[in-house]
Amino acid sequence: MREKFRELVKKKNRIYANLELLHWDLETKTPVKSKPYLSDLVAELSMQEYDLFTSDEFINLVENLNKEKENLSEIEKKEIELSMEDIERMKKIPSDEYEAYAKLTSINQGIWEEAKSKKDFSIVKANLEKIFNYNKKFAEYRRKNEKNLYDVLLNDYEKGMDIEKLDIFFNELKKEIVPFLKKIQEKKKSLKEENKIDVPVDEDIQFKFAKYLANYVGFDFEKGIIETSEHPFTLNLNKNDVRLTTNNKKDTPFSTVFSIIHEAGHGIYEQQTGDELIDTLLGTGGTMGLHESQSRFMENIVGRNKSFWKPLYKKAQEFYPFLKDIDFEEFSKQINKIEPGLIRVEADELTYSLHIMVRYEIEKMIFAGEVSIDDLPKIWNQKMVEYLGIEPENDSEGLMQDVHWYCGLVGYFPSYAIGSAYASQIYNTMKKDFDVGKALENQDIKKITDWLGEKIHKYGRLKDTAEIIKKVTGEELNPKYYIDYLKEKYSKIYEI
Amino acid sequence: MREKFRELVKKKNRIYANLELLHWDLETKTPVKSKPYLSDLVAELSMQEYDLFTSDEFINLVENLNKEKENLSEIEKKEIELSMEDIERMKKIPSDEYEAYAKLTSINQGIWEEAKSKKDFSIVKANLEKIFNYNKKFAEYRRKNEKNLYDVLLNDYEKGMDIEKLDIFFNELKKEIVPFLKKIQEKKKSLKEENKIDVPVDEDIQFKFAKYLANYVGFDFEKGIIETSEHPFTLNLNKNDVRLTTNNKKDTPFSTVFSIIHEAGHGIYEQQTGDELIDTLLGTGGTMGLHESQSRFMENIVGRNKSFWKPLYKKAQEFYPFLKDIDFEEFSKQINKIEPGLIRVEADELTYSLHIMVRYEIEKMIFAGEVSIDDLPKIWNQKMVEYLGIEPENDSEGLMQDVHWYCGLVGYFPSYAIGSAYASQIYNTMKKDFDVGKALENQDIKKITDWLGEKIHKYGRLKDTAEIIKKVTGEELNPKYYIDYLKEKYSKIYEI
Repeated sequence: MREKFRELVKKKNRIYANLELLHWDLETKTPVKSKPYLSDLVAELSMQEYDLFTSDEFINLVENLNKEKENLSEIEKKEIELSMEDIERMKKIPSDEYEAYAKLTSINQGIWEEAKSKKDFSIVKANLEKIFNYNKKFAEYRRKNEKNLYDVLLNDYEKGMDIEKLDIFFNELKKEIVPFLKKIQEKKKSLKEENKIDVPVDEDIQFKFAKYLANYVGFDFEKGIIETSEHPFTLNLNKNDVRLTTNNKKDTPFSTVFSIIHEAGHGIYEQQTGDELIDTLLGTGGTMGLHESQSRFMENIVGRNKSFWKPLYKKAQEFYPFLKDIDFEEFSKQINKIEPGLIRVEADELTYSLHIMVRYEIEKMIFAGEVSIDDLPKIWNQKMVEYLGIEPENDSEGLMQDVHWYCGLVGYFPSYAIGSAYASQIYNTMKKDFDVGKALENQDIKKITDWLGEKIHKYGRLKDTAEIIKKVTGEELNPKYYIDYLKEKYSKIYEI
Repeated sequence: MREKFRELVKKKNRIYANLELLHWDLETKTPVKSKPYLSDLVAELSMQEYDLFTSDEFINLVENLNKEKENLSEIEKKEIELSMEDIERMKKIPSDEYEAYAKLTSINQGIWEEAKSKKDFSIVKANLEKIFNYNKKFAEYRRKNEKNLYDVLLNDYEKGMDIEKLDIFFNELKKEIVPFLKKIQEKKKSLKEENKIDVPVDEDIQFKFAKYLANYVGFDFEKGIIETSEHPFTLNLNKNDVRLTTNNKKDTPFSTVFSIIHEAGHGIYEQQTGDELIDTLLGTGGTMGLHESQSRFMENIVGRNKSFWKPLYKKAQEFYPFLKDIDFEEFSKQINKIEPGLIRVEADELTYSLHIMVRYEIEKMIFAGEVSIDDLPKIWNQKMVEYLGIEPENDSEGLMQDVHWYCGLVGYFPSYAIGSAYASQIYNTMKKDFDVGKALENQDIKKITDWLGEKIHKYGRLKDTAEIIKKVTGEELNPKYYIDYLKEKYSKIYEI
């Protein structure tokens, strides 16, 4: 029985790797007229994967192994635990409803694109309402002892997370960061901040620098590659084949820099999962929040650190010669400018979580039935004014900017903010173990990635995120470290 | 029954496309530590494809449809005909022997690499003998009314080809080209030929020029892409997804140029197969010889044509600035230099077929039992001296230079020479229809590719090569056109 389980898991992993390769090709290389055929192939393989995991054979196997857990290895126990959760989830949602929902979300991405490009929310409004309603309904089906309906979804993306914990988290942010941002805004009035780093650089050179940086922070090119794509992403066939992309937009060469460091953070996590987890269900990164903590650690705590750039600035000037006219002190401020904007993905380190807060509060209201779909644009804009001090001029730079809700990702956004908070909390512990700034100045990034590998990456999905965070930092998610980190860093930079 | 057949063919094509994508990735992108896993995936999918085509279900289907051919469409008739040939071939070889052979050839590639790098034929000699013996044995099993055993294999790669026809072909070449080459060699003594075009050029620039040229000759980037790889090749998932590679070696920028024009010739052929052949067994190019005729037509008849470069030379100088110091007349000689060398893949247009002749004659001797494996190095070297006037210093630049025999491709080489000959014969007909040189000077390559598309490409595998050649040129393979073409062109260039 254990052998049969292993065999099916291996088979599943092979289908998964094949699917990831197809996705990779579709996003980076596939010629336009070949896309429909390869998309069909994706659909077919996805169905194979789904059929495998919903087959009576697999379900019986899992349920039977679950009854004799005492005979299983630690890895197998966790595989069975996670599989049981999936099976339970699946069994509670009627398959016809799930299929209808899957169809809706798959066609809706195109409709969202149209609505966004036409700046017309009415085009996609009815579908968005349906998607929210499906999510509520499915959450009802699956609800066990969760206090709030929304908790069911929060727990999907971040196991153990609920409104109670997130309210504490976001309330702290609101209390501390919103007024802190206002202070910075005040201070900025007296500064003549100029943008000196958005200077056009040839895409090929940006790409070469991106590869240099990925290697510099520890991304292993024997187990991975980098390509270009419309939107940067990381995917992995398995730990030995991790693929990052960058989008080298000519006019924003530092968008390339921080985006590749971010993706390398995801990539290194995958590359450092334990060898013993290969060919199991656990050989990949943990929850979305934990994954995001690793990319943001790399992007912000490492990548926007003055100590990181100090030994690297000369090299940077070789790739981007315009930097020769910017002195290092000025440069380190340039890469840490605070500027509230309308678009989440372009947000700086400080305001980023405020964007998430807007989305969290709206999701919460939707699940509590406190808001109608028609009011969403207004509420969105009000919250943007309240937290960030600026107002979208249309819904395309407001509640239609992100694809997430429109393709069914509801309850997903909070993980982004949690990821940043985990990163700061982990950083706080790391600093007790060694001098991180000094390691950066010594170009010893390996010290950092080894530490993360040993404390976090190697576990893959063997341990839950809450367990890892507790073990590494000695406590649960605590927004204090995140807030302290932000305030300390930006008080210094803005001298307030 | 016809529906079931269509369904299985579609399924087969999907597995094939998936396999090609995996091969593509393995040759162009796969990180080194991921290669074993993806190679396993290739093995598994190959097995799926094999199982599908050797299943009783498929075989019965084909045999039954073959009995009621009158009800089938033209396309289906041809699909059944080709499938019947495959089935017959398969049935005649005992599967255990075939498996042993497949294993041998698959491991032997690595052994050949080792032997070649160590310049030691003895390492791979025993296996090569086994491979030849298997091929003889399999040919015996399959022999029907073929006059010679070797004919069985020749027919595999070039349907309808046999020793009788090839002897006429190669004897003509020997009679005409060998003395012609000697004349050129004599003339060369009085010339101070310099190599002016092997000037280092940055790989990125070579790659950009390669893309420019592929587009220029008509490769459609909506249905294809170009990447870099160790050895240039073309593969296709289907007619809408054709992938070429180039190897941009810094010191030989014109190797990139002619290799991409060559591969584009293969690629355009695939892209121009008929739309009605999609999802059938016929939606890809014909025999290896016919395919090679299209790549060589593009590389040599088009790409090494003075009229091709005339309107393009300024552009070429933009990509390769060193050309500004070479006047056009001189340039057109530089790209058509004759220089006998030891290595087939580096051979010029004139001497290329002599390399093939060496291989053909040796294969013939092996099948006639006229030579022992121990004598091969000596015979190889003798023939090189006889036809090309030079002698290898070791077997790595002699009979170990090509992988073909060592991985089981026996009877394959002649197709390369036949391809060149077809190209000249087709060119001879094309010139009657319109002024090819003028089309090149007018940058109207489309006139040429449309003609080839209409007369050859659109048929895919619907018609046999012999049938196509006969229909297009009015006669069977005739070496006259090839010999005339070569002698006329190079008499002019070398003024003899």
